[in-house]
Amino acid sequence: MLKLSDVNSKLLKAHYAVRGKIVDRAQKLEAQGKKVIYCNIGNPQALKQKPLTFLRQVISLVETPELLASPEVARLFPADAVARAKMILEKNPNGTGAYTHSAGMPFIRRAVADFINRRDGIPVDPNRILLTDGASKGVQSALTLLLSHENDGVMIPIPQYPLYSATLTLYGARQVDYFLDEANNWQLDEKELAASHAAAVKRGVNPVAIAVINPGNPTGAVLSKENIGMIVRFAKERGLAILADEVYQENVYGKDLKFHSFAKVMHEMNENDVTLFSFHSVSKGFLGECGHRGGYMEIRNMGDDVYAELIKLQSIGLCANSIGQLVTYLMVAPPQPGDASHELYKKERGAILDDLKLKAEMLGKGLNEIKGMHVDIPRGAMYAFVKFDLPEPKGYNPFKLTPEERRRHDEERDTDYCLHLLEETGICVVPGSGFGQQPGTLHFRTTFLPPKDDIQALVEKMKRFHAHYVEELSAKARASLLYGSGE
Amino acid sequence: MLKLSDVNSKLLKAHYAVRGKIVDRAQKLEAQGKKVIYCNIGNPQALKQKPLTFLRQVISLVETPELLASPEVARLFPADAVARAKMILEKNPNGTGAYTHSAGMPFIRRAVADFINRRDGIPVDPNRILLTDGASKGVQSALTLLLSHENDGVMIPIPQYPLYSATLTLYGARQVDYFLDEANNWQLDEKELAASHAAAVKRGVNPVAIAVINPGNPTGAVLSKENIGMIVRFAKERGLAILADEVYQENVYGKDLKFHSFAKVMHEMNENDVTLFSFHSVSKGFLGECGHRGGYMEIRNMGDDVYAELIKLQSIGLCANSIGQLVTYLMVAPPQPGDASHELYKKERGAILDDLKLKAEMLGKGLNEIKGMHVDIPRGAMYAFVKFDLPEPKGYNPFKLTPEERRRHDEERDTDYCLHLLEETGICVVPGSGFGQQPGTLHFRTTFLPPKDDIQALVEKMKRFHAHYVEELSAKARASLLYGSGE
Repeated sequence: MLKLSDVNSKLLKAHYAVRGKIVDRAQKLEAQGKKVIYCNIGNPQALKQKPLTFLRQVISLVETPELLASPEVARLFPADAVARAKMILEKNPNGTGAYTHSAGMPFIRRAVADFINRRDGIPVDPNRILLTDGASKGVQSALTLLLSHENDGVMIPIPQYPLYSATLTLYGARQVDYFLDEANNWQLDEKELAASHAAAVKRGVNPVAIAVINPGNPTGAVLSKENIGMIVRFAKERGLAILADEVYQENVYGKDLKFHSFAKVMHEMNENDVTLFSFHSVSKGFLGECGHRGGYMEIRNMGDDVYAELIKLQSIGLCANSIGQLVTYLMVAPPQPGDASHELYKKERGAILDDLKLKAEMLGKGLNEIKGMHVDIPRGAMYAFVKFDLPEPKGYNPFKLTPEERRRHDEERDTDYCLHLLEETGICVVPGSGFGQQPGTLHFRTTFLPPKDDIQALVEKMKRFHAHYVEELSAKARASLLYGSGE
Repeated sequence: MLKLSDVNSKLLKAHYAVRGKIVDRAQKLEAQGKKVIYCNIGNPQALKQKPLTFLRQVISLVETPELLASPEVARLFPADAVARAKMILEKNPNGTGAYTHSAGMPFIRRAVADFINRRDGIPVDPNRILLTDGASKGVQSALTLLLSHENDGVMIPIPQYPLYSATLTLYGARQVDYFLDEANNWQLDEKELAASHAAAVKRGVNPVAIAVINPGNPTGAVLSKENIGMIVRFAKERGLAILADEVYQENVYGKDLKFHSFAKVMHEMNENDVTLFSFHSVSKGFLGECGHRGGYMEIRNMGDDVYAELIKLQSIGLCANSIGQLVTYLMVAPPQPGDASHELYKKERGAILDDLKLKAEMLGKGLNEIKGMHVDIPRGAMYAFVKFDLPEPKGYNPFKLTPEERRRHDEERDTDYCLHLLEETGICVVPGSGFGQQPGTLHFRTTFLPPKDDIQALVEKMKRFHAHYVEELSAKARASLLYGSGE
């Protein structure tokens, strides 16, 4: 029988906190009847966000094309949903039950190219667009293409979305951390990038790419155009490919803030050398269609020969799921003014985005009022990365610890904090150590996806919990001072 | 810019013939207006197989739950489709737009367990069932779990479905070939297994698993119960896990033949030690829902600790797509006698399976009448693996060649044959070298999925082509004998 010691050692080492220990415990509590508020994962429809009506109507019609012939169809579906479904069946006559081309249905790849062109006003090649089962699978394909040798590494932000660290560990590649600047709205700092790269090279790592998440997960930050330009120049100087995780591009809430794509910035810089992989997804934005596993990757500055290898990789898994491809299509080609569904679509989209913006502020402001907590009001994405202070245990001296011991010490503390938060309040968040953080600091990541009415209650509960937890820790520290800890 | 020499060398080496060079050429010819008959891939709905009505109706209702509330729903949908959609929305209140548990929706995993229990009359643990984006992704997850070191290897059949060889190459693991016995209906031979294993160990390979495809792809063979028992004993003696690719379990056409699952045979043998991964899919059988990318893997004889690692692996990619999960559910829980859709479902299923059986025979008999071609009438799956003879080029002496030179010689010949077949007739099949074959033999794999009326025409075209191709080769050989080949 297969034993744990037989299991792929790289898999054993991989760690994906968003669905780890805390979430396991939450599911157990829920099974026991406790109410859990899942703030651990960007899963909007699990927190009552409604799907966009038009999108689902088109999918329903495409799945059962006989509906289109029935006399009732006009009473049940708006004219543009019917027309769109017919158009899809014409462009893809095999229907949703057939494997598509490895890269996805050609008409959808062209629609994605048009979408990027409209968004950025730049030329786009449909033959460098690949439809994927969500952005995660796209990122993994790009990393499979890029990583060849054991000492190959990828620069990733700290804090990061743990897909990156988990995949690098799984692929046996080297992780090259660069810290985001918490004091400067989590932007990237050129000196930090240079130092991180130089230190990696010094320890024998060959960095092949840099991953950037914009808007940021877990930080909620939106990168400035200048910051992106700096990253492109940095990548060019070091011969790095860029993985631009842009799945939160529609989730920008900050006043006067704008999403700038790497594709656009590179085009404006006349950059024809740096290979760019840019990822988008149907799971975030205002769609929140996580379950459908749809997304695309757009590639710039890649020859036909290399692109063919990526297509071959896709072909081994055959193709992305057809409904995910169609949801991607409907994301990039929404109803237009004058279409029957346009008004409703606009209203639904607006309501979701306004609601997210409001909740980002409510949560951010609320948490900032808690003594010992600090967070940048999220300007983008779906998360707040909240810094919190705890009294140090008696006799703690960071200078006596190795960096690894210190990291583990922080990890024990933020994990214990989040576990207690879950047990006492039912709120499920992810410890900062799951994303990475500056040594000696503690964080947790929470989404701001719960319904508005729940957010205020959530802040109240966190406030009471935090005060109580800090008090208990202090009491413990006093007790061990009085009676000795036995150490 | 990323160059081919920068690309992952393992990816460069990986080869997936089902969507390779011949198919690329076919797509180019089609774009030029030529009619292509795609017999390269088991993609039934691309060859006019209709989806099952009930299944698609339920999906349509679940995608747009508002339909359930409309007065027209009873006129458009049968009562059991409506009831089933309501039940799904109750069991999975987040709907299709939310991430599910990493292993899939719990009620579907229970339904899969019930399905296996009904099929085999054996106990099944829902907590060892994982829903996957098609069987290919399941196989890749199992291999990721199993393969730890560079010298780890997996025994795979020759001929095989190239997912296995491609994935092993991609993962940097060792491929251990064992030949299926063409003279004995492609069953597995114990001596061949033992010799293959021993030779692998001798060259430093550590075999960790054996992959078996039953019913066979590309062979169309159905393994006997005794043959499966032998494989289980063999795996146990060598400490191997078993990967049982059982995606064609509904596709058994041979008279008096029955599909025997590895799970059932192992249960009857009281085998509690050999770890089994069994794979199933919605893409084959009578559903042919390839585009939806649904499937499951059932695992036996695995501890909680190892299973947890597999779940962690799934969680890094979040979950299988929700519609693929639901199609899997509807595969394992079809309408029951008395349900409104039952008669239609039975009729549709029967028509598809009868049609496949008829076409398997038509194609097999037709090809066997062609001089220089031989094929076992397919007893299962969707393919015929056809052996064909060609005159050897002048002066060819296999004993002068290394095994690798010989393999390449065969590969050049079957590839040239299939390319010419495509150019002259529009029929797209895959060369035997893409699956592996005994040195010195030539094959191609064709599906028998085209509509009945096309099959006869296909056989006729192949007959004319084969005679013509052989004649040309012979003429070339004579000419080079008369005038010298310049070698």
